[in-house]
Amino acid sequence: MVPWDKLREECGVFAIVSHPDAARMTYLGLYALQHRGQESAGIATLDGRKLRLHKDMGHVADVFDEERLEKLPGSSAIGHVRYSTAGSSELTNAQPIVIDSWRGPVALAHNGNLINASQIRRELERDGAIFHSTSDSEVILHLLSRSKRRTLVDAFIEALRIVRGAFSLVVLTADYLMVARDAHGFRPLCLGRVDGRYVIASETCALDLLDAEYVREVDPGEVLIIDEDMVESRFPLPKEKPAYCIFEHVYFSRPDSFVFGRTVDTSRHHMGIRLAREHPVEADVVVPVPDSGVSAAIGYARESGIPLEFGLIRNHYVGRTFIEPRQSIRNFGVKVKLNPVREILAGKRVILVDDSIVRGTTSKKIVHIIRGAGAKEIHLRISSPPIVGPCYYGIDTPTKRELIASSKTVEETRRFIGADSLGYLSLEALLESVGDTGCYCSACFTDRYPTDVAHEEMQKELFGKRLEDILAPSS
Amino acid sequence: MVPWDKLREECGVFAIVSHPDAARMTYLGLYALQHRGQESAGIATLDGRKLRLHKDMGHVADVFDEERLEKLPGSSAIGHVRYSTAGSSELTNAQPIVIDSWRGPVALAHNGNLINASQIRRELERDGAIFHSTSDSEVILHLLSRSKRRTLVDAFIEALRIVRGAFSLVVLTADYLMVARDAHGFRPLCLGRVDGRYVIASETCALDLLDAEYVREVDPGEVLIIDEDMVESRFPLPKEKPAYCIFEHVYFSRPDSFVFGRTVDTSRHHMGIRLAREHPVEADVVVPVPDSGVSAAIGYARESGIPLEFGLIRNHYVGRTFIEPRQSIRNFGVKVKLNPVREILAGKRVILVDDSIVRGTTSKKIVHIIRGAGAKEIHLRISSPPIVGPCYYGIDTPTKRELIASSKTVEETRRFIGADSLGYLSLEALLESVGDTGCYCSACFTDRYPTDVAHEEMQKELFGKRLEDILAPSS
Amino acid sequence: MVPWDKLREECGVFAIVSHPDAARMTYLGLYALQHRGQESAGIATLDGRKLRLHKDMGHVADVFDEERLEKLPGSSAIGHVRYSTAGSSELTNAQPIVIDSWRGPVALAHNGNLINASQIRRELERDGAIFHSTSDSEVILHLLSRSKRRTLVDAFIEALRIVRGAFSLVVLTADYLMVARDAHGFRPLCLGRVDGRYVIASETCALDLLDAEYVREVDPGEVLIIDEDMVESRFPLPKEKPAYCIFEHVYFSRPDSFVFGRTVDTSRHHMGIRLAREHPVEADVVVPVPDSGVSAAIGYARESGIPLEFGLIRNHYVGRTFIEPRQSIRNFGVKVKLNPVREILAGKRVILVDDSIVRGTTSKKIVHIIRGAGAKEIHLRISSPPIVGPCYYGIDTPTKRELIASSKTVEETRRFIGADSLGYLSLEALLESVGDTGCYCSACFTDRYPTDVAHEEMQKELFGKRLEDILAPSS
Amino acid sequence: MVPWDKLREECGVFAIVSHPDAARMTYLGLYALQHRGQESAGIATLDGRKLRLHKDMGHVADVFDEERLEKLPGSSAIGHVRYSTAGSSELTNAQPIVIDSWRGPVALAHNGNLINASQIRRELERDGAIFHSTSDSEVILHLLSRSKRRTLVDAFIEALRIVRGAFSLVVLTADYLMVARDAHGFRPLCLGRVDGRYVIASETCALDLLDAEYVREVDPGEVLIIDEDMVESRFPLPKEKPAYCIFEHVYFSRPDSFVFGRTVDTSRHHMGIRLAREHPVEADVVVPVPDSGVSAAIGYARESGIPLEFGLIRNHYVGRTFIEPRQSIRNFGVKVKLNPVREILAGKRVILVDDSIVRGTTSKKIVHIIRGAGAKEIHLRISSPPIVGPCYYGIDTPTKRELIASSKTVEETRRFIGADSLGYLSLEALLESVGDTGCYCSACFTDRYPTDVAHEEMQKELFGKRLEDILAPSS
Repeated sequence: MVPWDKLREECGVFAIVSHPDAARMTYLGLYALQHRGQESAGIATLDGRKLRLHKDMGHVADVFDEERLEKLPGSSAIGHVRYSTAGSSELTNAQPIVIDSWRGPVALAHNGNLINASQIRRELERDGAIFHSTSDSEVILHLLSRSKRRTLVDAFIEALRIVRGAFSLVVLTADYLMVARDAHGFRPLCLGRVDGRYVIASETCALDLLDAEYVREVDPGEVLIIDEDMVESRFPLPKEKPAYCIFEHVYFSRPDSFVFGRTVDTSRHHMGIRLAREHPVEADVVVPVPDSGVSAAIGYARESGIPLEFGLIRNHYVGRTFIEPRQSIRNFGVKVKLNPVREILAGKRVILVDDSIVRGTTSKKIVHIIRGAGAKEIHLRISSPPIVGPCYYGIDTPTKRELIASSKTVEETRRFIGADSLGYLSLEALLESVGDTGCYCSACFTDRYPTDVAHEEMQKELFGKRLEDILAPSS
Repeated sequence: MVPWDKLREECGVFAIVSHPDAARMTYLGLYALQHRGQESAGIATLDGRKLRLHKDMGHVADVFDEERLEKLPGSSAIGHVRYSTAGSSELTNAQPIVIDSWRGPVALAHNGNLINASQIRRELERDGAIFHSTSDSEVILHLLSRSKRRTLVDAFIEALRIVRGAFSLVVLTADYLMVARDAHGFRPLCLGRVDGRYVIASETCALDLLDAEYVREVDPGEVLIIDEDMVESRFPLPKEKPAYCIFEHVYFSRPDSFVFGRTVDTSRHHMGIRLAREHPVEADVVVPVPDSGVSAAIGYARESGIPLEFGLIRNHYVGRTFIEPRQSIRNFGVKVKLNPVREILAGKRVILVDDSIVRGTTSKKIVHIIRGAGAKEIHLRISSPPIVGPCYYGIDTPTKRELIASSKTVEETRRFIGADSLGYLSLEALLESVGDTGCYCSACFTDRYPTDVAHEEMQKELFGKRLEDILAPSS
Repeated sequence: MVPWDKLREECGVFAIVSHPDAARMTYLGLYALQHRGQESAGIATLDGRKLRLHKDMGHVADVFDEERLEKLPGSSAIGHVRYSTAGSSELTNAQPIVIDSWRGPVALAHNGNLINASQIRRELERDGAIFHSTSDSEVILHLLSRSKRRTLVDAFIEALRIVRGAFSLVVLTADYLMVARDAHGFRPLCLGRVDGRYVIASETCALDLLDAEYVREVDPGEVLIIDEDMVESRFPLPKEKPAYCIFEHVYFSRPDSFVFGRTVDTSRHHMGIRLAREHPVEADVVVPVPDSGVSAAIGYARESGIPLEFGLIRNHYVGRTFIEPRQSIRNFGVKVKLNPVREILAGKRVILVDDSIVRGTTSKKIVHIIRGAGAKEIHLRISSPPIVGPCYYGIDTPTKRELIASSKTVEETRRFIGADSLGYLSLEALLESVGDTGCYCSACFTDRYPTDVAHEEMQKELFGKRLEDILAPSS
Repeated sequence: MVPWDKLREECGVFAIVSHPDAARMTYLGLYALQHRGQESAGIATLDGRKLRLHKDMGHVADVFDEERLEKLPGSSAIGHVRYSTAGSSELTNAQPIVIDSWRGPVALAHNGNLINASQIRRELERDGAIFHSTSDSEVILHLLSRSKRRTLVDAFIEALRIVRGAFSLVVLTADYLMVARDAHGFRPLCLGRVDGRYVIASETCALDLLDAEYVREVDPGEVLIIDEDMVESRFPLPKEKPAYCIFEHVYFSRPDSFVFGRTVDTSRHHMGIRLAREHPVEADVVVPVPDSGVSAAIGYARESGIPLEFGLIRNHYVGRTFIEPRQSIRNFGVKVKLNPVREILAGKRVILVDDSIVRGTTSKKIVHIIRGAGAKEIHLRISSPPIVGPCYYGIDTPTKRELIASSKTVEETRRFIGADSLGYLSLEALLESVGDTGCYCSACFTDRYPTDVAHEEMQKELFGKRLEDILAPSS
């Protein structure tokens, strides 16, 4: 894989109930959600009362073919795509996870991250539980199976009350589909309808591909029980202040998706406008880093009156593996993906627009490339604030130390990157751009977390509560 | 797969401790044990205190290559080959099974079958356990993890006391290799030594390939704890009457293996001799069904003085998949594997020697083929008694109804198969051929089981004991 | 493959001489040229005096890995990517083609199309030649081998004098690399230099990726003989009027490439400007069809003052195969690739910009999608004239009948597509946009061909000249 | 591949005409001929007047599956299996070779070796021909295409008159199947009939699998023209003394095949009888090297009265690749394939029977293994004479220097191998065993070749005849 200095979404989920073409619809849904995870893809279907599963490493288009889909009969299905990391990517961590228990077979697909998973895992292990993966999602299945509640739904809810953190979940059982979104609503999840049947997806772009009608978001803290005829809604979790992931609007979601009540492209366009106002500069051309900086660059160009040009061309055929030349050419990882258009850049004062800076390494290389194409000045504009804190809610962030903004000032960052000027969008402007009314989590920009993360992370070794206690919170 | 009417061994296991080339040695060991399972192959190694695993569907030679073995560093390893069935073969059931628990990572490879697995599973599930496979071996790992015993060895032993049935087990942990054979000793398991290190294998042919010295059998009911320097032996299980699987000598084990204190080829040779005495017939030629009938046919020919000829030639290139012609030729499944030598058979009175008859369908086709090659008479001789009962100890047997001997007399079987005469070896002669001194299980020939199978199978629904009780038998 | 109504470039070629990392450099070059052909990829290297070859169906990233490149030692190499069609794609037609002859081994990679190939082939066949592919390029190798000229270069030139049509060729032999571009210069071909060694590529974007310096275009009618130290240039072909393929600027080449003396992006930008002048319309937003319409849309927006928006989002993860749902959703092939942004389009008067219309089927679906997203008016603007004639020079065009502009007026086309208005760029404006000084072939827009195509195509059956005569034109 | 010191047959061929299931029948035929070549497999079918081809490296079962066979429609087909060598195995050399020429498409599959191929190739190349493979078979297609003869059959015959050496050929064209066997009849080829249609195969075991009736051998020098209704036989080649390859009976052909008028197993049985008479020895047991020595060992045991035992067990799961342990165990290549049965060998005087010795390396290892299993004496008996000359007629022999018998006396060989005694069958006895009446080629045992090989091999550089002269022998 060509390394690229971006935060990464962990996953996308999809589900459909009582549809004659469940596996194919799920396949298509995952196709549209592919940008949320390129490491692995999987579909589980319910055939009679038996669950069938196929998952493998790779893109949806590679993991599934006609033959594979034929072997996934059944009228309900859930699907999952997972992000790609260098080292720990393993088939055992791919989802859906399918298990058998006294409640029957259960399949689960999870987008998010449970902040108390390792603690619960330790408790469960102490009680004799065995784990087949290193996925935090597996603990939900253990809790579900261990619950003494009579019904599966009650057991599911009990499990959800124990875990903390981010979860947009679909859980397929022999009787119905259960859907849940954590009380903060960190990750998106929406409900749609096609051919009279219900579908669930991480983003609305999956509904669009299926010509499914958008019904509404699954609300924070909401649990849906879906079968052929009905959707039952419950709100069994303690109410929390909403904390929608602002990075879905900054980078993760597709611009055509409608997320947290707003089209992503609109947010990004506004970020560009606000960025132009906060960090104006005399220049000849506005150039986006494709594809992440395009929407903001359009906004910036519009507001500033400086013409937009695609001065960096993206090679869309970059595959998952890539072989470097022996005497490695400088900036190679970036060059294979982006090539400058000298005609546009030479002799120009360039405003380069990107969505974010993580480690700064890729930005540095891009600036170098543009400079090499003859740009006279390079003014880097970032449509979000400096990232200073890691995410605990489902985003793959590097350690705090690796985040350039956690140790360098803006001026130091500018010097590291080699730009002539560097401007980040202010948090205030960002929040306004997404139309915030106090519902967003911006912890990665502020280091202020909506949940008691420090406690979770630092004191969990001391945390003495027995699992039994946790398991019976309502008794 | 070309269908072949044989009972099938479920698995082969291998282990090696503290050897610099652990993964490769295990690969070789599995290579030699390939006849015990062609469905899947897997190796788990201990690298530091971390377990690494690779397993996949297919033969050892296909599942592993240089690159794969390179990715299995570490000085201890266990390996497993599994048999092939049409439907239920799934990667999730392949072994070794690797899990994580509060006792750390554990890898297990199991040859045998636990007769109370489904009951224990139900109990464990009622207590909240979740299962990732349909393998009976998974319950051992649950029991191991749930045990409150302080040491891993004690927990392992506690688990072994709960399960009943056949198990030849290797369990790799961060501290040592644990090995166990059930108290009846149903399946073989031997201890060897190479380069000063210990190895464990289902059959001695694996030791031979590695130039490992044969030390001894793992005894029935014995548990070995092996680390770099020592082998500790314990006998923690209640003593039982030995019940070695006689079919290992009839068909499963390789003729060059030394199993249950006796070379398999010797046993088969004797079976042939006794068969000639019990069922003599005037004939021109003794023809084995290759390769299973060869050793017995040599014995029969020797004893009878009738010349041995290879009148059936086996095609050794038969692959796992096979495409039949559209207008399917009669007896095709057999013809692709065996071709008659007309010169040897035409006009002759043929004694056809095979090791066993299961459903009778393949025997019928072979007799048809030999008749088609011009044989004047065909006298089928079987070097074991009629199979009348299914096996519960690790052999894949068809249902009782499918066993031809459970519903047909010998004469009816003869007529079905189309032979001119049919003679089975008596149980008495078989037991003498393997040098029995009351240590063998011959339940498949007698329907008399060494464990209380009926109880297990029929009354387990009524079985009300709580798992907690089972889990603390010594308290 | 998702069908997409586009003309398709046939191939890209690359070569490098006397470089220690020849195979890897070629791999990288092909990576950058991937957009010119996604059907197959191949590399031939010269190892000592022996040619080595690997080619297969698929993308460069899939066809080659470390192991494959290791097996291609040698200091000179040529590479080829080929376009993808549904039916006739076969490995035997993949390039480079490597053959052995009395002149030694020869490898050839060809971009273009020979208009008299079938005639020469027939002549060669009559003379006993046998063909291993249906590729027109194979005839060049036959002619080269049959030539009586003493040197390989003379033989190559003799062969080039016989073939007619479009060829940008690299031919690797044991002694040197031979490069040729036909006298009309239909297809691009450029010379670069990296690490003191020469490289040849279809487009400059391949040079950029390697940090190679752009030296110059290979001239029309030029033959280069390249070895370690030198480039020898010859002009042995009868001079012709230049006829550069204008479609390279309209659609084929990457916008960052410098082709026929001009950056492609610049041309496209100008096309957009001229399009705005020729077909102005009152509207709210300019929306490109990504990625082909982007550069022109920027020009159109700039000139018209109407804001640019990315109202269609492209899914970059669309693979080579795609499984449709059973009850196929209307416009599915397009929907999986493009999704409308309702927020941008709803209630708006939209100017939709694309580069060309071939059959009109895709345009019709895109217009339908945009209308479905709520657009009030849709004004389709095409940055090139109507395509009325097939290409004989290396572009995969449908038959004349399938070209919508060959049978429908602009108004009829508009009605078929369902747009509110439709405007094509005039040929005059297109030619000015590419800075033409009489050097471009625009036969697909005019049906006037720079070579005597009608004669070739219609009368070749009557063409009685013997191959011998062709083979000795100078005697 | 596990190295094994054997001569290797080059190929097997198969053909069927006007059968509704042509591709599948050919697939089955190749399945039965798999022992004649494990490197590559291919099938070409005639669909209407168009040839279709699939070939790849690997076994028949791996190269073809349902999907592949579905893509080979048509009622006539030819197939080919090719042997495996370490280095030069390449897909381009796999057969059938399919070419296009003025006579239309032609597919060819060839078993044998043309001794004047390189000379003809040089002539053809001088005349401008280009070669796509290094296969000698390609020259036949060139000659066929270059012939001026009016009909394809006449052209084929003309080509056959030019080539010299061994050929059992099937050639599929749009009009009929052409079959040829060289005038010496080096390699076998037989004609059969199934479902009223004609089939051609290298060995009768392929007919047996299809339930095809054996009609007769294709005679030496015979050309058959086969279409739906008829077989036309011609004898257009100059008559030669027959020279059937005696090694087909010694080792290559399957024992159940009827080759050169005699069942192979019968020949081998007789070889064993004669071997016992020529080289008797007091011993306890006769042990064959499986599988090649089995038939002769049975004969030896019968004649000598010494009991036969399978003291070496073959592992039938040995794959094409094999990974050795790092500190390679001595004799490993042999050990993975053969394991001794200590019980049979320990303390015994063993007569070890094999079919031939090539380099002696494998025999040495086997003797070492048997000695290691405790044998007291080892008397090696070989059922053919010492191999002293390479084969020029389609067998892969090492160079003369590598043949142990070309440089060592029998006593020296015995010492090298480490046997207590060594006896080869005399040529006289071998010829009698195969029922020879002066029709066999035994050049590898005598160094006396039935064709003027020395001339071919040594003087071909001086050979000045022009190809034109060769091409017009009848003018």
